[in-house]
Amino acid sequence: MSLSLYEREKPIPPEEYVRVDYGSLKKWVKNVYIKLGLLKEHAEIVADVLTMADLMGISSHGVQRVSRYVTGIKLGTVNLRPKVRIVKDFGATALIDGDNGLGHPTALYAMNVAVSKAGKYGVSLVLVKNSHHFGIAGYYSLKAAEEGFIGMTVTNSEPLVAYTHTAERYLGTNPIAVAIPRRNPPPILFDAATSVVPVGKIELYSKIGKEVPPGWAIDLEGNILSGNAKGILKAIRERKAALLPLGGLGEELGGHKGSGLSMIIDVFSGVLSGAAWGWHVRHTISDRPANVGHAIAAVNIDAFMDKDVFFDRLEKFISEIKSLRKHPKAERIWIPGEKAWLTMQTRLKIGIPIHKAVLNELKRISNEVGIPFTVNIVREKAY
Amino acid sequence: MSLSLYEREKPIPPEEYVRVDYGSLKKWVKNVYIKLGLLKEHAEIVADVLTMADLMGISSHGVQRVSRYVTGIKLGTVNLRPKVRIVKDFGATALIDGDNGLGHPTALYAMNVAVSKAGKYGVSLVLVKNSHHFGIAGYYSLKAAEEGFIGMTVTNSEPLVAYTHTAERYLGTNPIAVAIPRRNPPPILFDAATSVVPVGKIELYSKIGKEVPPGWAIDLEGNILSGNAKGILKAIRERKAALLPLGGLGEELGGHKGSGLSMIIDVFSGVLSGAAWGWHVRHTISDRPANVGHAIAAVNIDAFMDKDVFFDRLEKFISEIKSLRKHPKAERIWIPGEKAWLTMQTRLKIGIPIHKAVLNELKRISNEVGIPFTVNIVREKAY
Repeated sequence: MSLSLYEREKPIPPEEYVRVDYGSLKKWVKNVYIKLGLLKEHAEIVADVLTMADLMGISSHGVQRVSRYVTGIKLGTVNLRPKVRIVKDFGATALIDGDNGLGHPTALYAMNVAVSKAGKYGVSLVLVKNSHHFGIAGYYSLKAAEEGFIGMTVTNSEPLVAYTHTAERYLGTNPIAVAIPRRNPPPILFDAATSVVPVGKIELYSKIGKEVPPGWAIDLEGNILSGNAKGILKAIRERKAALLPLGGLGEELGGHKGSGLSMIIDVFSGVLSGAAWGWHVRHTISDRPANVGHAIAAVNIDAFMDKDVFFDRLEKFISEIKSLRKHPKAERIWIPGEKAWLTMQTRLKIGIPIHKAVLNELKRISNEVGIPFTVNIVREKAY
Repeated sequence: MSLSLYEREKPIPPEEYVRVDYGSLKKWVKNVYIKLGLLKEHAEIVADVLTMADLMGISSHGVQRVSRYVTGIKLGTVNLRPKVRIVKDFGATALIDGDNGLGHPTALYAMNVAVSKAGKYGVSLVLVKNSHHFGIAGYYSLKAAEEGFIGMTVTNSEPLVAYTHTAERYLGTNPIAVAIPRRNPPPILFDAATSVVPVGKIELYSKIGKEVPPGWAIDLEGNILSGNAKGILKAIRERKAALLPLGGLGEELGGHKGSGLSMIIDVFSGVLSGAAWGWHVRHTISDRPANVGHAIAAVNIDAFMDKDVFFDRLEKFISEIKSLRKHPKAERIWIPGEKAWLTMQTRLKIGIPIHKAVLNELKRISNEVGIPFTVNIVREKAY
C-alpha cells in the first residue's frame, strides 16, 4: 500500500468534492468568528481545532460544524466573551468554569493548566464545567504531547448512546483521547468514542450512500438496525434510535464495558465537575447553554523515567507491534494516530477535500456574516 | 428477578460444587502462604484478594489460583521477602519497585500511597515495576473508594490478546478498574479486561461445557473461533490462538479501540514504569520474575466538590440510568459493580461455591505444604 498520498477518509465520489488550501480555510474560519464577536485569540483556537479535524480526516468534526457554532452564537446559547477561570485549585488539580463560551478555547486553557501542574507535581487533573462542544478531543491531548507530556482528554456530549440493557439515547459518545509523545512525530494518538462509532460516521455513510452494518445502532424496541444510513440517522435525530456502546448489544461481546467506560467518563466530566450529565447535556443549538463538562489530565514523563530511556522503550514497543504476525485480511498494522498523521501530511500537500454541499454552506455563512469568502480552491475535483 | 440470593456466576451443575465458609477459606489461604514463608501481613493481603474474587463471583481470579502462586514461590520466581519501596517521588506521583514479590501486597501499598498523595494534591499517579500478577484489579480501586476517594487501577499481564490487524498473542488482557464511592454501598465498580472477555471466561466455559460464541478468539490464520471451549482454551495456551480485543476483529465494530486502550495501558504499566510490556510480561509460573507493571491512581473528590453534593448528584445520575427504557430482552439495568456486590452478600450468607476439582487441589496443596485443611464445607452441594 502506497502511503505517499494516504487519506483515511477518502472523498467519494471525488466529483462531489473540491480541495481547498488549509491556510486560507483556517484564516476564513477565524474571520467568521471574529466578525461574530469572538475574541481574536479565541477565534484563532476554534479555527485551528476545526481545520485540524479536516486535516486529520475527521470531517464530521471539521468545518462542516462552523454553522453549528454560528447558530449557537446567534441564539445566544454561546457566551461570546466568557470569563474562563479557575474556581477551585488543590495543587495538582483545578476546577475551571468555562462561563458558557465555546469549548475549544476553554479546553485548551484547561490543558495548559494541566501541563503546568504536571510539570510541578508529576500528574494533574483539571475538570471543566459550563463548557460547550469542543471539537476533536485529540487536539488537546496532542498539545500536551507537543510539550513532551502525556495528555488525556475526556468529555461528555449530547445524549446519543443507549446504556447497556436499555433502548434509548442517554449517554454521550463520550470520547477518550490519549496522546503520548515519541522521539520523532507522529506521537501516539488514541482518540475514540466509547460508542461503537461516533454519530459522524453514520452522517458520513448517509452522505456517501454507504450501508450501515449491523451492530452500530438500535431502535426503541431494542432491534439492531442496519442498511440505509439516512433512515438510521433520521431515527437517531428524532430519538427513535440510539447508538450502541463499544462492545455492542448486551454483554456477550462486552457492551457493558463500553457502556461502563462511558458512564465513568460522565462521572468525571459531568457529575464531579458540576456540569450536566446524561441527557441533561445540551447541543450547541439549543434554548440554553449546553453545560458540557470535560476532564483533562497530563502526566510528566520525567517524574518516572529519563525521557530518552522512555523514548527508546516506546520505539521498541512500537516496532514489536509492527512486526507481529499480520492478519491475512489486513493491509497494514496501524499505531493509534498514524492514519490521522498521514492524512494530515497528504492534505497539507494537496489540499483538504470539502463536499460541495458543505462548500455552499460555508459561502452562505460568509454572506450572512458579511465577510468575503477567501477560501482558496486548489482543485475543482478531489482526485 | 429475585435478588435476595443472586449470584452472577452460578455453580453449574450444583452437584459438582460444595459451598465453603468465607472466613475459614480466607484463613486457610493465609496459613498456606505463611507456611511457605510469606510475611504474615502479606499472606493476609493475598488471602483477602483471592477470596474476595470468589465472593464477588470472579472465580477465575479466586482460590483456584492459590496453586499458581504456590508454584511460583517454589520455583523461586516470586521473592518471598520483597523490599517494596518508592524509588522515585515527584510530589503527586511515585514509582514503586515491587522487588519481584507477589503483586497483591505491592499493589495495595501503591494504592495507599496514591490515596495519601491524592489527599494532599487532589490527584495522584503511582506506577509499579517488578511486580507479579495481583488478582482482581478492582480490589485496589475499592480500597480507595472505602477511603472516600475515586480509585483507578490498570495493569499489564501475560500476552493473550491479538492487537488489531494481527493474529497472535501479544498484549495482555490489561484490565481497567475504576471504583467510585457512593453515599451508601455498593460503590460503583467498573472492572473490565480490555479484551472481549478475560481468558478466565473461556476457562469457565470449558469447565461447565458451554460453547464459546463467535467473536471471542481467533487462530493464527485470523479465523474467528467458536464452539468447543476446551479446544479453544488449549489453542490459546499453546499460542495457536489469541483473544480478541474489546470491539472484536478489525475496525468495523471498534476492535482498534479495545486494542488501542490495551496498548495505552501497557505504555503506562510497562513502558513508563520500567516493567516488562507485551510478550515480555511473564506468567507467575515461569523461569524468571514476571516483571508485571501496574498504574494506580486516586482522585480526591473534595478537590472538586463538597462530598455531599457529589453524592447527591451521583445518586441522581444512577437513578436516571435505572429508570431508562429497558431493553425488552434485559431482566434488569445494572450499574457497574452491582452484580459483584449482590453475589458477595449472597455468598457471605450461604457460602462460596468451590468446584470439587478445585477443592481437591486445595487439599493437595494443604498436604504438600504441610498444614491442616481447615476450610469449612457448609453445603455438600452448591444449591
